[in-house]
Amino acid sequence: MKIDILTLFPEMFAPLEHSILGKAKDKGLLEVHYHNFRQQAENARHVDDEPYGGGQGMLLRAQPVFTAVENIKAEHPRIILLDPAGKPFSQAYAEELAEEKELIFICGHYEGFDERIKTLVTDEISLGDFVLTGGELAAMAVIDATVRLLPDVLGKTASHQDDSFSTGLLEYPQYTRPYDFRGLQVPDVLLSGHHENIRRWRLEQSLRKTYERRPDLLKDAQLSDEAEKLLAKIKKEALE
Amino acid sequence: MKIDILTLFPEMFAPLEHSILGKAKDKGLLEVHYHNFRQQAENARHVDDEPYGGGQGMLLRAQPVFTAVENIKAEHPRIILLDPAGKPFSQAYAEELAEEKELIFICGHYEGFDERIKTLVTDEISLGDFVLTGGELAAMAVIDATVRLLPDVLGKTASHQDDSFSTGLLEYPQYTRPYDFRGLQVPDVLLSGHHENIRRWRLEQSLRKTYERRPDLLKDAQLSDEAEKLLAKIKKEALE
Repeated sequence: MKIDILTLFPEMFAPLEHSILGKAKDKGLLEVHYHNFRQQAENARHVDDEPYGGGQGMLLRAQPVFTAVENIKAEHPRIILLDPAGKPFSQAYAEELAEEKELIFICGHYEGFDERIKTLVTDEISLGDFVLTGGELAAMAVIDATVRLLPDVLGKTASHQDDSFSTGLLEYPQYTRPYDFRGLQVPDVLLSGHHENIRRWRLEQSLRKTYERRPDLLKDAQLSDEAEKLLAKIKKEALE
Repeated sequence: MKIDILTLFPEMFAPLEHSILGKAKDKGLLEVHYHNFRQQAENARHVDDEPYGGGQGMLLRAQPVFTAVENIKAEHPRIILLDPAGKPFSQAYAEELAEEKELIFICGHYEGFDERIKTLVTDEISLGDFVLTGGELAAMAVIDATVRLLPDVLGKTASHQDDSFSTGLLEYPQYTRPYDFRGLQVPDVLLSGHHENIRRWRLEQSLRKTYERRPDLLKDAQLSDEAEKLLAKIKKEALE
Protein backbone atom coordinates (compact mmCIF):
# COMPACT_ATOMS: atom_id res chain seq x y z
CA MET A 1 0.00 0.00 0.00
CA LYS A 2 1.17 3.51 -0.84
CA ILE A 3 0.16 6.38 1.41
CA ASP A 4 0.71 10.07 0.73
CA ILE A 5 0.14 12.52 3.55
CA LEU A 6 -0.40 16.27 3.08
CA THR A 7 0.47 18.09 6.26
CA LEU A 8 2.09 21.26 7.56
CA PHE A 9 3.66 19.17 10.34
CA PRO A 10 5.35 16.07 8.88
CA GLU A 11 7.37 15.69 12.09
CA MET A 12 4.14 14.87 13.95
CA PHE A 13 4.04 11.49 12.22
CA ALA A 14 6.91 10.00 14.23
CA PRO A 15 4.54 7.45 15.86
CA LEU A 16 3.99 5.82 12.46
CA GLU A 17 7.61 4.72 12.48
CA HIS A 18 7.09 2.68 15.64
CA SER A 19 5.38 -0.56 16.33
CA ILE A 20 3.45 -2.53 13.72
CA LEU A 21 3.50 0.21 11.09
CA GLY A 22 7.28 0.50 11.22
CA LYS A 23 7.40 -3.27 10.74
CA ALA A 24 5.04 -3.03 7.75
CA LYS A 25 7.41 -0.52 6.16
CA ASP A 26 10.44 -2.69 6.92
CA LYS A 27 8.70 -5.65 5.27
CA GLY A 28 8.08 -3.58 2.16
CA LEU A 29 4.28 -3.76 2.60
CA LEU A 30 3.84 -0.05 3.14
CA GLU A 31 5.28 3.08 1.57
CA VAL A 32 4.60 6.47 3.17
CA HIS A 33 5.38 9.88 1.67
CA TYR A 34 4.95 13.23 3.37
CA HIS A 35 4.12 16.44 1.51
CA ASN A 36 4.39 19.71 3.35
CA PHE A 37 2.03 21.81 1.24
CA ARG A 38 3.56 24.99 2.63
CA GLN A 39 6.13 24.39 -0.11
CA GLN A 40 3.34 24.50 -2.70
CA ALA A 41 1.99 27.90 -1.64
CA GLU A 42 2.20 30.52 -4.40
CA ASN A 43 3.61 33.04 -1.98
CA ALA A 44 6.02 31.55 0.50
CA ARG A 45 4.30 30.57 3.77
CA HIS A 46 0.96 31.81 2.48
CA VAL A 47 -1.04 28.71 3.44
CA ASP A 48 -3.83 30.34 5.45
CA ASP A 49 -6.00 33.43 5.38
CA GLU A 50 -8.97 35.04 7.14
CA PRO A 51 -12.50 33.69 6.57
CA TYR A 52 -14.91 35.54 4.27
CA GLY A 53 -17.82 36.91 6.27
CA GLY A 54 -15.76 37.33 9.45
CA GLY A 55 -15.03 35.02 12.35
CA GLN A 56 -12.11 33.97 14.46
CA GLY A 57 -9.16 31.96 13.28
CA MET A 58 -7.47 31.30 9.98
CA LEU A 59 -8.47 28.90 7.22
CA LEU A 60 -6.28 26.76 4.98
CA ARG A 61 -6.32 28.12 1.44
CA ALA A 62 -7.37 25.90 -1.46
CA GLN A 63 -4.43 26.50 -3.82
CA PRO A 64 -1.54 24.85 -1.91
CA VAL A 65 -3.63 21.74 -1.23
CA PHE A 66 -4.82 21.47 -4.85
CA THR A 67 -1.26 21.85 -6.17
CA ALA A 68 0.13 19.31 -3.70
CA VAL A 69 -2.51 16.70 -4.60
CA GLU A 70 -1.97 17.29 -8.32
CA ASN A 71 1.77 16.71 -7.91
CA ILE A 72 1.26 13.23 -6.46
CA LYS A 73 1.53 10.40 -8.96
CA ALA A 74 -1.30 8.04 -8.16
CA GLU A 75 -3.87 6.02 -10.08
CA HIS A 76 -7.38 6.15 -8.70
CA PRO A 77 -6.35 6.94 -5.12
CA ARG A 78 -8.83 7.41 -2.31
CA ILE A 79 -8.36 11.06 -1.29
CA ILE A 80 -9.28 11.44 2.35
CA LEU A 81 -9.94 14.67 4.22
CA LEU A 82 -9.98 14.45 8.02
CA ASP A 83 -12.92 16.53 9.22
CA PRO A 84 -15.14 16.25 12.31
CA ALA A 85 -18.13 16.74 10.01
CA GLY A 86 -17.15 13.70 7.92
CA LYS A 87 -18.40 10.12 8.00
CA PRO A 88 -17.59 8.49 11.34
CA PHE A 89 -14.65 6.10 11.10
CA SER A 90 -15.30 2.45 11.99
CA GLN A 91 -13.75 -0.99 11.73
CA ALA A 92 -15.82 -1.62 8.58
CA TYR A 93 -14.40 1.59 7.09
CA ALA A 94 -10.86 0.42 7.96
CA GLU A 95 -11.54 -2.90 6.22
CA GLU A 96 -12.73 -1.02 3.14
CA LEU A 97 -9.63 1.20 3.03
CA ALA A 98 -7.38 -1.84 3.54
CA GLU A 99 -8.51 -3.05 0.08
CA GLU A 100 -7.10 0.05 -1.64
CA LYS A 101 -3.67 0.40 -3.24
CA GLU A 102 -3.22 4.15 -2.78
CA LEU A 103 -4.48 6.49 -0.09
CA ILE A 104 -3.94 10.24 0.13
CA PHE A 105 -4.62 11.99 3.44
CA ILE A 106 -5.20 15.76 3.72
CA CYS A 107 -4.61 17.06 7.25
CA GLY A 108 -6.09 20.42 8.15
CA HIS A 109 -4.82 22.58 10.95
CA TYR A 110 -5.70 26.03 12.26
CA GLU A 111 -9.44 26.71 12.43
CA GLY A 112 -10.53 24.88 9.33
CA PHE A 113 -10.17 24.93 5.56
CA ASP A 114 -11.63 26.51 2.49
CA GLU A 115 -14.76 24.55 1.57
CA ARG A 116 -13.56 24.20 -2.02
CA ILE A 117 -10.89 21.73 -0.90
CA LYS A 118 -13.72 19.24 -0.46
CA THR A 119 -14.25 19.12 -4.24
CA LEU A 120 -10.88 17.30 -4.43
CA VAL A 121 -11.65 14.44 -2.09
CA THR A 122 -13.37 11.06 -2.30
CA ASP A 123 -13.85 10.64 1.48
CA GLU A 124 -14.45 12.99 4.39
CA ILE A 125 -13.68 11.01 7.54
CA SER A 126 -14.38 11.93 11.14
CA LEU A 127 -12.51 10.05 13.86
CA GLY A 128 -15.40 10.73 16.24
CA ASP A 129 -17.60 13.43 17.73
CA PHE A 130 -14.78 15.51 19.16
CA VAL A 131 -12.48 18.25 17.89
CA LEU A 132 -8.70 17.92 17.52
CA THR A 133 -6.23 20.74 16.89
CA GLY A 134 -5.43 19.25 13.50
CA GLY A 135 -6.02 16.30 11.23
CA GLU A 136 -2.66 14.68 11.94
CA LEU A 137 -3.65 12.52 14.94
CA ALA A 138 -6.85 11.49 13.17
CA ALA A 139 -4.90 10.52 10.04
CA MET A 140 -2.47 8.45 12.11
CA ALA A 141 -5.32 6.60 13.82
CA VAL A 142 -7.02 5.85 10.48
CA ILE A 143 -3.71 4.68 8.99
CA ASP A 144 -2.89 2.52 12.02
CA ALA A 145 -6.32 0.84 12.06
CA THR A 146 -6.13 0.25 8.30
CA VAL A 147 -2.54 -0.93 7.85
CA ARG A 148 -2.72 -3.52 10.63
CA LEU A 149 -5.43 -5.28 8.58
CA LEU A 150 -3.16 -5.73 5.56
CA PRO A 151 -2.11 -9.35 4.94
CA ASP A 152 1.20 -10.27 6.60
CA VAL A 153 1.46 -7.08 8.69
CA LEU A 154 0.51 -8.75 11.96
CA GLY A 155 2.75 -11.73 12.65
CA LYS A 156 1.99 -14.98 14.41
CA THR A 157 2.37 -13.36 17.82
CA ALA A 158 -0.58 -11.09 17.15
CA SER A 159 -3.84 -11.32 15.35
CA HIS A 160 -6.87 -9.25 14.56
CA GLN A 161 -9.30 -12.15 14.41
CA ASP A 162 -10.26 -11.77 18.08
CA ASP A 163 -10.41 -7.97 18.17
CA SER A 164 -13.36 -6.05 19.41
CA PHE A 165 -15.65 -5.26 16.42
CA SER A 166 -14.15 -7.89 14.08
CA THR A 167 -17.04 -10.12 15.21
CA GLY A 168 -19.37 -7.18 15.80
CA LEU A 169 -19.01 -7.71 19.57
CA LEU A 170 -16.76 -6.28 22.28
CA GLU A 171 -13.89 -8.52 23.29
CA TYR A 172 -14.22 -10.94 26.22
CA PRO A 173 -12.06 -10.45 29.37
CA GLN A 174 -8.55 -11.86 29.22
CA TYR A 175 -6.14 -12.92 31.97
CA THR A 176 -2.50 -13.81 32.20
CA ARG A 177 -0.23 -14.96 35.05
CA PRO A 178 -0.22 -14.99 38.01
CA TYR A 179 -3.40 -16.91 38.84
CA ASP A 180 -3.85 -14.85 41.99
CA PHE A 181 -2.92 -11.17 41.85
CA ARG A 182 -3.56 -9.35 45.13
CA GLY A 183 -6.51 -11.61 45.86
CA LEU A 184 -8.05 -11.25 42.40
CA GLN A 185 -8.22 -14.66 40.75
CA VAL A 186 -8.53 -15.88 37.20
CA PRO A 187 -11.95 -17.48 36.44
CA ASP A 188 -11.58 -21.23 36.90
CA VAL A 189 -12.98 -22.16 33.49
CA LEU A 190 -9.87 -20.66 31.85
CA LEU A 191 -7.66 -23.13 33.74
CA SER A 192 -9.89 -26.14 33.01
CA GLY A 193 -8.22 -27.08 29.74
CA HIS A 194 -11.74 -27.74 28.40
CA HIS A 195 -11.62 -25.93 25.06
CA GLU A 196 -15.34 -26.09 24.37
CA ASN A 197 -16.25 -24.63 27.77
CA ILE A 198 -13.67 -21.88 27.34
CA ARG A 199 -14.98 -20.99 23.89
CA ARG A 200 -18.55 -20.85 25.19
CA TRP A 201 -17.59 -18.80 28.28
CA ARG A 202 -15.77 -16.26 26.08
CA LEU A 203 -18.70 -15.96 23.71
CA GLU A 204 -21.08 -15.40 26.62
CA GLN A 205 -18.75 -12.78 28.16
CA SER A 206 -18.50 -10.94 24.83
CA LEU A 207 -22.26 -10.93 24.47
CA ARG A 208 -22.78 -9.82 28.07
CA LYS A 209 -20.28 -6.94 27.83
CA THR A 210 -21.72 -5.78 24.52
CA TYR A 211 -25.28 -5.96 25.84
CA GLU A 212 -24.40 -4.00 28.98
CA ARG A 213 -22.12 -1.36 27.42
CA ARG A 214 -22.97 -1.03 23.76
CA PRO A 215 -26.37 -2.54 22.98
CA ASP A 216 -26.33 -0.44 19.78
CA LEU A 217 -23.69 -2.81 18.36
CA LEU A 218 -25.99 -5.83 18.69
CA LYS A 219 -28.30 -4.49 16.00
CA ASP A 220 -25.66 -4.98 13.29
CA ALA A 221 -23.87 -8.03 14.74
CA GLN A 222 -24.30 -11.27 12.81
CA LEU A 223 -24.96 -13.79 15.55
CA SER A 224 -24.92 -17.56 15.33
CA ASP A 225 -27.88 -19.55 16.66
CA GLU A 226 -25.80 -20.36 19.75
CA ALA A 227 -25.05 -16.67 20.32
CA GLU A 228 -28.71 -15.73 19.87
CA LYS A 229 -29.70 -18.26 22.55
CA LEU A 230 -27.03 -17.02 24.96
CA LEU A 231 -28.10 -13.43 24.37
CA ALA A 232 -31.71 -14.30 25.09
CA LYS A 233 -30.59 -15.83 28.40
CA ILE A 234 -28.54 -12.70 29.26
CA LYS A 235 -31.47 -10.43 28.48
CA LYS A 236 -33.78 -12.55 30.60
CA GLU A 237 -31.37 -12.45 33.56
CA ALA A 238 -31.05 -8.67 33.25
CA LEU A 239 -34.82 -8.29 33.58
CA GLU A 240 -35.09 -10.51 36.66
CA MET B 1 -3.17 20.32 34.33
CA LYS B 2 -0.86 17.42 35.13
CA ILE B 3 -0.87 14.38 32.88
CA ASP B 4 0.93 11.10 33.55
CA ILE B 5 1.17 8.59 30.73
CA LEU B 6 1.97 4.89 31.21
CA THR B 7 3.34 3.46 28.00
CA LEU B 8 5.91 1.04 26.65
CA PHE B 9 6.58 3.52 23.84
CA PRO B 10 7.14 7.02 25.27
CA GLU B 11 8.86 8.06 22.03
CA MET B 12 5.51 7.70 20.22
CA PHE B 13 4.29 10.85 21.98
CA ALA B 14 6.42 13.22 19.90
CA PRO B 15 3.29 14.79 18.33
CA LEU B 16 2.29 16.15 21.75
CA GLU B 17 5.30 18.43 21.65
CA HIS B 18 4.03 20.13 18.51
CA SER B 19 1.30 22.61 17.85
CA ILE B 20 -1.13 23.79 20.52
CA LEU B 21 -0.07 21.26 23.16
CA GLY B 22 3.56 22.31 22.96
CA LYS B 23 2.39 25.88 23.44
CA ALA B 24 0.33 24.87 26.48
CA LYS B 25 3.45 23.33 28.00
CA ASP B 26 5.53 26.41 27.15
CA LYS B 27 2.92 28.62 28.86
CA GLY B 28 3.11 26.45 32.00
CA LEU B 29 -0.51 25.32 31.63
CA LEU B 30 0.34 21.68 31.10
CA GLU B 31 2.79 19.23 32.62
CA VAL B 32 3.29 15.81 31.02
CA HIS B 33 5.23 12.89 32.50
CA TYR B 34 5.94 9.58 30.79
CA HIS B 35 6.31 6.30 32.66
CA ASN B 36 7.63 3.31 30.81
CA PHE B 37 6.21 0.55 32.98
CA ARG B 38 8.68 -1.92 31.53
CA GLN B 39 10.97 -0.47 34.21
CA GLN B 40 8.44 -1.53 36.88
CA ALA B 41 8.30 -5.18 35.84
CA GLU B 42 9.49 -7.54 38.58
CA ASN B 43 11.62 -9.40 36.10
CA ALA B 44 13.30 -7.17 33.56
CA ARG B 45 11.26 -6.91 30.34
CA HIS B 46 8.60 -9.22 31.72
CA VAL B 47 5.62 -7.01 30.84
CA ASP B 48 3.53 -9.50 28.90
CA ASP B 49 2.56 -13.14 28.99
CA GLU B 50 0.29 -15.69 27.29
CA PRO B 51 -3.47 -15.65 27.92
CA TYR B 52 -5.03 -18.22 30.28
CA GLY B 53 -7.33 -20.51 28.35
CA GLY B 54 -5.33 -20.21 25.14
CA GLY B 55 -5.50 -17.82 22.22
CA GLN B 56 -3.19 -15.82 20.05
CA GLY B 57 -1.07 -12.91 21.16
CA MET B 58 0.34 -11.67 24.42
CA LEU B 59 -1.37 -9.76 27.23
CA LEU B 60 0.01 -6.99 29.43
CA ARG B 61 0.52 -8.27 32.96
CA ALA B 62 -1.17 -6.53 35.89
CA GLN B 63 1.85 -6.06 38.17
CA PRO B 64 3.96 -3.54 36.20
CA VAL B 65 0.91 -1.34 35.58
CA PHE B 66 -0.21 -1.47 39.24
CA THR B 67 3.29 -0.59 40.46
CA ALA B 68 3.68 2.27 37.97
CA VAL B 69 0.32 3.81 38.93
CA GLU B 70 1.10 3.47 42.64
CA ASN B 71 4.42 5.30 42.12
CA ILE B 72 2.69 8.37 40.70
CA LYS B 73 2.04 11.13 43.22
CA ALA B 74 -1.44 12.38 42.50
CA GLU B 75 -4.51 13.39 44.50
CA HIS B 76 -7.80 12.03 43.19
CA PRO B 77 -6.64 11.64 39.58
CA ARG B 78 -8.86 10.33 36.82
CA ILE B 79 -7.20 7.07 35.78
CA ILE B 80 -8.01 6.36 32.16
CA LEU B 81 -7.57 3.09 30.30
CA LEU B 82 -7.78 3.27 26.51
CA ASP B 83 -9.84 0.30 25.35
CA PRO B 84 -12.08 -0.23 22.32
CA ALA B 85 -14.68 -1.72 24.70
CA GLY B 86 -14.75 1.50 26.77
CA LYS B 87 -17.17 4.42 26.75
CA PRO B 88 -17.05 6.23 23.39
CA PHE B 89 -15.09 9.48 23.58
CA SER B 90 -16.98 12.68 22.70
CA GLN B 91 -16.72 16.45 22.93
CA ALA B 92 -18.78 16.35 26.14
CA TYR B 93 -16.32 13.84 27.58
CA ALA B 94 -13.41 16.14 26.64
CA GLU B 95 -15.16 19.04 28.40
CA GLU B 96 -15.56 16.88 31.51
CA LEU B 97 -11.88 15.86 31.53
CA ALA B 98 -10.82 19.49 30.99
CA GLU B 99 -12.22 20.26 34.47
CA GLU B 100 -9.78 17.83 36.13
CA LYS B 101 -6.40 18.70 37.65
CA GLU B 102 -4.73 15.31 37.17
CA LEU B 103 -5.15 12.68 34.50
CA ILE B 104 -3.37 9.34 34.26
CA PHE B 105 -3.48 7.44 30.95
CA ILE B 106 -2.73 3.71 30.67
CA CYS B 107 -1.82 2.67 27.14
CA GLY B 108 -2.05 -1.01 26.27
CA HIS B 109 -0.19 -2.61 23.44
CA TYR B 110 0.13 -6.16 22.14
CA GLU B 111 -3.14 -8.09 22.03
CA GLY B 112 -4.73 -6.74 25.17
CA PHE B 113 -4.28 -6.61 28.93
CA ASP B 114 -5.04 -8.60 32.03
CA GLU B 115 -8.63 -7.83 33.02
CA ARG B 116 -7.55 -7.06 36.61
CA ILE B 117 -5.90 -3.83 35.41
CA LYS B 118 -9.45 -2.47 35.05
CA THR B 119 -9.89 -2.52 38.86
CA LEU B 120 -7.36 0.35 38.96
CA VAL B 121 -9.12 2.75 36.65
CA THR B 122 -11.88 5.34 36.90
CA ASP B 123 -12.56 5.54 33.14
CA GLU B 124 -12.39 3.12 30.24
CA ILE B 125 -12.42 5.22 27.08
CA SER B 126 -12.83 4.10 23.49
CA LEU B 127 -11.80 6.48 20.73
CA GLY B 128 -14.33 4.85 18.42
CA ASP B 129 -15.50 1.55 16.98
CA PHE B 130 -12.18 0.56 15.47
CA VAL B 131 -9.05 -1.21 16.67
CA LEU B 132 -5.62 0.40 16.94
CA THR B 133 -2.29 -1.39 17.49
CA GLY B 134 -1.99 0.31 20.89
CA GLY B 135 -3.48 2.88 23.19
CA GLU B 136 -0.92 5.56 22.40
CA LEU B 137 -2.66 7.21 19.43
CA ALA B 138 -5.97 7.10 21.28
CA ALA B 139 -4.40 8.70 24.37
CA MET B 140 -2.89 11.47 22.26
CA ALA B 141 -6.23 12.22 20.63
CA VAL B 142 -8.00 12.36 24.01
CA ILE B 143 -5.27 14.60 25.41
CA ASP B 144 -5.31 16.90 22.38
CA ALA B 145 -9.10 17.29 22.43
CA THR B 146 -9.04 17.94 26.19
CA VAL B 147 -6.06 20.28 26.54
CA ARG B 148 -7.20 22.63 23.77
CA LEU B 149 -10.29 23.36 25.90
CA LEU B 150 -8.24 24.60 28.88
CA PRO B 151 -8.49 28.36 29.48
CA ASP B 152 -5.73 30.35 27.75
CA VAL B 153 -4.45 27.43 25.64
CA LEU B 154 -6.00 28.65 22.38
CA GLY B 155 -4.93 32.23 21.64
CA LYS B 156 -6.82 35.00 19.90
CA THR B 157 -5.98 33.59 16.50
CA ALA B 158 -7.95 30.45 17.24
CA SER B 159 -11.04 29.55 19.14
CA HIS B 160 -13.15 26.54 19.98
CA GLN B 161 -16.44 28.42 20.20
CA ASP B 162 -17.31 27.73 16.57
CA ASP B 163 -16.13 24.12 16.45
CA SER B 164 -18.27 21.29 15.27
CA PHE B 165 -20.07 19.78 18.30
CA SER B 166 -19.52 22.78 20.62
CA THR B 167 -23.04 23.83 19.58
CA GLY B 168 -24.21 20.27 19.02
CA LEU B 169 -24.16 20.88 15.25
CA LEU B 170 -21.62 20.32 12.49
CA GLU B 171 -19.72 23.42 11.42
CA TYR B 172 -20.93 25.57 8.51
CA PRO B 173 -18.80 25.84 5.32
CA GLN B 174 -15.99 28.38 5.40
CA TYR B 175 -14.16 30.18 2.61
CA THR B 176 -11.04 32.28 2.29
CA ARG B 177 -9.39 34.14 -0.59
CA PRO B 178 -9.46 34.16 -3.55
CA TYR B 179 -13.13 34.86 -4.32
CA ASP B 180 -12.91 32.77 -7.46
CA PHE B 181 -10.77 29.64 -7.37
CA ARG B 182 -10.83 27.71 -10.64
CA GLY B 183 -14.39 28.82 -11.27
CA LEU B 184 -15.61 27.94 -7.78
CA GLN B 185 -16.92 31.08 -6.11
CA VAL B 186 -17.55 32.13 -2.55
CA PRO B 187 -21.29 32.45 -1.72
CA ASP B 188 -22.27 36.10 -2.18
CA VAL B 189 -23.81 36.48 1.27
CA LEU B 190 -20.34 36.17 2.84
CA LEU B 191 -19.16 39.24 0.90
CA SER B 192 -22.25 41.30 1.70
CA GLY B 193 -20.98 42.77 4.94
CA HIS B 194 -24.47 42.17 6.36
CA HIS B 195 -23.66 40.52 9.69
CA GLU B 196 -27.21 39.38 10.47
CA ASN B 197 -27.62 37.70 7.08
CA ILE B 198 -24.22 36.01 7.44
CA ARG B 199 -25.09 34.72 10.92
CA ARG B 200 -28.40 33.34 9.68
CA TRP B 201 -26.85 31.75 6.57
CA ARG B 202 -24.23 30.02 8.71
CA LEU B 203 -26.84 28.71 11.14
CA GLU B 204 -28.93 27.35 8.28
CA GLN B 205 -25.86 25.71 6.69
CA SER B 206 -24.93 24.07 10.00
CA LEU B 207 -28.44 22.75 10.44
CA ARG B 208 -28.62 21.51 6.85
CA LYS B 209 -25.28 19.71 7.03
CA THR B 210 -26.15 18.11 10.37
CA TYR B 211 -29.58 17.05 9.12
CA GLU B 212 -28.13 15.51 5.95
CA ARG B 213 -25.06 13.84 7.43
CA ARG B 214 -25.65 13.22 11.12
CA PRO B 215 -29.34 13.47 11.99
CA ASP B 216 -28.50 11.52 15.18
CA LEU B 217 -26.82 14.67 16.55
CA LEU B 218 -30.03 16.70 16.30
CA LYS B 219 -31.68 14.65 19.04
CA ASP B 220 -29.30 16.04 21.68
CA ALA B 221 -28.70 19.51 20.20
CA GLN B 222 -30.22 22.40 22.15
CA LEU B 223 -31.77 24.51 19.44
CA SER B 224 -33.05 28.09 19.66
CA ASP B 225 -36.55 28.91 18.40
CA GLU B 226 -34.93 30.39 15.29
CA ALA B 227 -32.96 27.18 14.69
CA GLU B 228 -36.06 25.03 15.20
CA LYS B 229 -37.92 27.04 12.56
CA LEU B 230 -35.03 26.82 10.09
CA LEU B 231 -34.78 23.07 10.69
CA ALA B 232 -38.49 22.63 10.04
CA LYS B 233 -38.03 24.46 6.72
CA ILE B 234 -35.04 22.24 5.81
CA LYS B 235 -36.97 19.07 6.63
CA LYS B 236 -39.94 20.25 4.57
CA GLU B 237 -37.70 21.02 1.56
CA ALA B 238 -36.09 17.57 1.84
CA LEU B 239 -39.51 15.92 1.56
CA GLU B 240 -40.58 17.89 -1.50
